[in-house]
Amino acid sequence: MSRFWSDIVHRLTPYVPGEQPALAHPIKLNTNENPYPPSPRVVDAIRRELGDDGASLRKYPDPTARALREAVAAHHGLRVEQVFAGNGSDEVLAHAFQALLKHDAPIRFPDITYSFYPVYAKLYGIEYETIPLDDDFAVRIDGYRAPNGGVLLPNPNAPTGRALPLADIEALLKANPDAPVIIDEAYVDFGAESAVTLVNAYPNLLVVQTTSKARSLAGMRVGFAFGDAALIDALTRVKDSFNSYPLDRLAQAAALASYEDRAWFEASCAKVVASRERLAAQLQGLGFDVVPSAANFVFAKHPAHDAAALAAALKKQEIFVRHFALPRVGQHLRISIGTDAECDALVAALTALIG
Amino acid sequence: MSRFWSDIVHRLTPYVPGEQPALAHPIKLNTNENPYPPSPRVVDAIRRELGDDGASLRKYPDPTARALREAVAAHHGLRVEQVFAGNGSDEVLAHAFQALLKHDAPIRFPDITYSFYPVYAKLYGIEYETIPLDDDFAVRIDGYRAPNGGVLLPNPNAPTGRALPLADIEALLKANPDAPVIIDEAYVDFGAESAVTLVNAYPNLLVVQTTSKARSLAGMRVGFAFGDAALIDALTRVKDSFNSYPLDRLAQAAALASYEDRAWFEASCAKVVASRERLAAQLQGLGFDVVPSAANFVFAKHPAHDAAALAAALKKQEIFVRHFALPRVGQHLRISIGTDAECDALVAALTALIG
Repeated sequence: MSRFWSDIVHRLTPYVPGEQPALAHPIKLNTNENPYPPSPRVVDAIRRELGDDGASLRKYPDPTARALREAVAAHHGLRVEQVFAGNGSDEVLAHAFQALLKHDAPIRFPDITYSFYPVYAKLYGIEYETIPLDDDFAVRIDGYRAPNGGVLLPNPNAPTGRALPLADIEALLKANPDAPVIIDEAYVDFGAESAVTLVNAYPNLLVVQTTSKARSLAGMRVGFAFGDAALIDALTRVKDSFNSYPLDRLAQAAALASYEDRAWFEASCAKVVASRERLAAQLQGLGFDVVPSAANFVFAKHPAHDAAALAAALKKQEIFVRHFALPRVGQHLRISIGTDAECDALVAALTALIG
Repeated sequence: MSRFWSDIVHRLTPYVPGEQPALAHPIKLNTNENPYPPSPRVVDAIRRELGDDGASLRKYPDPTARALREAVAAHHGLRVEQVFAGNGSDEVLAHAFQALLKHDAPIRFPDITYSFYPVYAKLYGIEYETIPLDDDFAVRIDGYRAPNGGVLLPNPNAPTGRALPLADIEALLKANPDAPVIIDEAYVDFGAESAVTLVNAYPNLLVVQTTSKARSLAGMRVGFAFGDAALIDALTRVKDSFNSYPLDRLAQAAALASYEDRAWFEASCAKVVASRERLAAQLQGLGFDVVPSAANFVFAKHPAHDAAALAAALKKQEIFVRHFALPRVGQHLRISIGTDAECDALVAALTALIG
């Protein structure tokens, strides 16, 4: 607290990211990172940009990230004017809140969802209503029909992992022709249907994606939004009033290269999906209720063991999972999909704790 | 324009950064980049973080940039709680506007200054008053005495290059005990006195610096703020409500390494300063009025030649300088200090145009 703070600072409740333990070899299943390194092309591209003496680093990066946006547009069959690039999808979402979600009516998002959404809403003074998921953690799309100031849905949802069929998203877009509908697809590549295919048909649709999960680039901070050129223009106007150069040279080179290696990308996603199904079955074998997941994590609760106690006991063994002390999900654990060896270590530890 | 835009988007006038020409070998004296590569330690540190297979890139970076902030704190004789790190000093300034400059009274900054300041003010709905520089482009500190909602001064000022003595800044801090005073030191290392030495004495002081200029890391986007822990806490609260991980792994490693090589830093600054004095003398020899500069650029006008026409003629020869079509400075050119060879090419071109 300080008399020098703007009023807004007093009212904020900042987001708390998952712990980044300073341990040599933690089993880190708490922040939904990919267990596999990025494509070798990414490493080559960074080395190439760096050169012998790093001379290119003295120069500003392209403020428009044009080459990167062109590559990603081509990947998705879009025009470059339909692609926005930002410093991780968190920055893209922040700009989207400010640029597209401040209207007279409140916006709507699920009661159980990415816990950054209410934080953004407070930062920009945006009213919101939460629509409860049903008892199985499925999104009830009837709760998102107009009138509202905008709709925000992750697909798959986090931290539940449940996916929404594309037909439901299209129904929502039709039900909200005058409000922006933002689909946050951070985890879409692990088994959900992307709404990118609907961008040309619906001028109210903004799709947000990231390189942090399926492309193994959480460490490089590159995210995207896809939508009608007018929506992308709004994000760009906010971005150019905030920070001209949000993506450094190595981040742009890294992200671009990751889109040049579709084989690596597909193989990496397939490995994670296979490990997810294996882990889900093992957890069920231990008595856990596991929410059907289309993401790179599972959301599970045990009917006879307290989730916070389990997370604490695992942490003592340097195994990190995420527990949210929040209504309705306080007995769940969100467990990122590691390598099979990491998942096995988790299952062994849980077996000892539970069995 | 779109019905989906938040009101604020319609009211923005985004900042326009200097051109990044897509040419093989432009003489690029328009964005105040350092002509020399960063320290070799920077390149080594990036290679080390990257490793053989880029495996570390799959993991999120430290959201608090703790190791980097500790190194920079030690460099300046501060505590880590007095240091904020952001995605370039532009992001740091944006957060400072939102976190520290929105009060009942308008903030004040010079009429001729970094043209991003009014852009930030519009983005966050902050009222401001501009205080005219005197006829020699010196800051008139009497214009910044309380009451006001905050004071923002670059030192040296941009695009003039003129520095303010530390005693004047201390007088301003004393005259504004109840308002934040932000000193933007992007160019301080080329000849001005840093106010970092006053941070422990004045709880209303925030000093902003960057690695983009004197440390040759414009391509990596790392900036800092130094101030009382309560001011840094305000920035951190806004940052953690906006984007948890603004600095990627390679950017953190690069910036940290640049603070480990004081000899490189000092030699690089000395070279730029020597080239600046040489160029200023050559421009004066051609009849230019050159504002005394403590930065890595000079601000100059010719009494007999139109600045916009000169900039356009230089651009045809792939020599880029910056011209601002703004009141009071429309006949000036801002010329970044390149290598002596680049400065010589500029002088030769100007000699042909003018002589």
